[in-house]
Amino acid sequence: MINYAIILVSGTGSRTGLKIPKQFVKISGKTILEYSVSAFEKNKNIDRIIVVSNPLYIDLTKNIIQKSGFKKVINVLEGGETRQQSSYIGINSIKDTNAKVLIHDGVRPFISQKIINNCIEALNFYKAVNVAVESSDTIFEINDKNIIKNIPERKFLKRCQTPQCFDINIIKSAHELAVKDSLYNFSDDCGLVLKYNLSDIYVVDGSMYNIKITYPIDIEIAEIIADKLKKEEII
Amino acid sequence: MINYAIILVSGTGSRTGLKIPKQFVKISGKTILEYSVSAFEKNKNIDRIIVVSNPLYIDLTKNIIQKSGFKKVINVLEGGETRQQSSYIGINSIKDTNAKVLIHDGVRPFISQKIINNCIEALNFYKAVNVAVESSDTIFEINDKNIIKNIPERKFLKRCQTPQCFDINIIKSAHELAVKDSLYNFSDDCGLVLKYNLSDIYVVDGSMYNIKITYPIDIEIAEIIADKLKKEEII
Repeated sequence: MINYAIILVSGTGSRTGLKIPKQFVKISGKTILEYSVSAFEKNKNIDRIIVVSNPLYIDLTKNIIQKSGFKKVINVLEGGETRQQSSYIGINSIKDTNAKVLIHDGVRPFISQKIINNCIEALNFYKAVNVAVESSDTIFEINDKNIIKNIPERKFLKRCQTPQCFDINIIKSAHELAVKDSLYNFSDDCGLVLKYNLSDIYVVDGSMYNIKITYPIDIEIAEIIADKLKKEEII
Repeated sequence: MINYAIILVSGTGSRTGLKIPKQFVKISGKTILEYSVSAFEKNKNIDRIIVVSNPLYIDLTKNIIQKSGFKKVINVLEGGETRQQSSYIGINSIKDTNAKVLIHDGVRPFISQKIINNCIEALNFYKAVNVAVESSDTIFEINDKNIIKNIPERKFLKRCQTPQCFDINIIKSAHELAVKDSLYNFSDDCGLVLKYNLSDIYVVDGSMYNIKITYPIDIEIAEIIADKLKKEEII
């Protein structure tokens, strides 16, 4: 059994309003990409890492990976037009049929060793695993006229983080079924597994530090988190 | 028609891990309580403000309000044991029957003038109004075994902020029905209006700055937001 991590950095970061995609922004002297890859590089349960990059920035991505001296990165691939396609490209590059794969948003730099370990452990019991935290806000459903329809009980609602983790065969099947159905823009891999009802998806606890860098303010928040984690000698 | 704001600062802030409740924490030299009250104080559409305090900290709350020289604060009341009870105490202190009321979490210091104005405007058309933002994370429902049950379409899911805004008669009715049903721990006022189906609840756009100070890291995030808003001369 080989454990793979796929790091997706295929976005252009249009929402941060920056000139470079957010994976290349430096937090406390190191790019966001390096933080994400290094979390899996140093995890003792991860054997190989595949990075899927935005094609426009493939050279920069390769340069950063090479200079950082990561030993487990076996491939830096050009991604597709959507997240789903980039994920598919990463998954399809894995030829082993006896493998676990953890698919991680490369712009979530502060994924902890504990979460990675818990995901791999949970994959011994489930063929699909997701990471999530409770919502600290009440979540409600609206209709298309902006009127509240329903307020679901909060304890049953979770905010999805990554990695999303799978037995390789399950996630390959999910993507192949999606292609047959001409679906190319599904926002996440667990959604596909759920759609085709291929496996129960178990939820592992995430962390409030495992944020996704989306908006400019997130970069400043990331600096605060990096400081905290450095003080605690976690990164 | 008189427009009231009720500022709820009835919590003890146990989750921040601080020795004082978070409404008394200073951000850039001013307490969180002062930011919240001052947003309504300076809003031209708000006539009167009622503050509902944790009974243990009523004197400190009164002191801060007095020293700040707020002109619209007509009352600082002792809250109850739950958020619902504190809200009820605030609402019941209003004797006008021709009034709008905006109920705001006092630990959301960066509520904007625009949101307040939009709420009051929306109350001309709806008897209940809530403030919310889109979730930047995917939200899913789990069952009691931590297995994903459903991933609702994201565009129909909103993260609730405050103020929650009402025609005074609607929200009084909602609370009275709750008391009759021996419900004392509903987490928000809109939930009560929805439960008793007393009015459509319209949703007004919130802002990513309108955060609720919950965890220690939120205090540092609040400092960043305060800096930004000061630079833009918004606070």
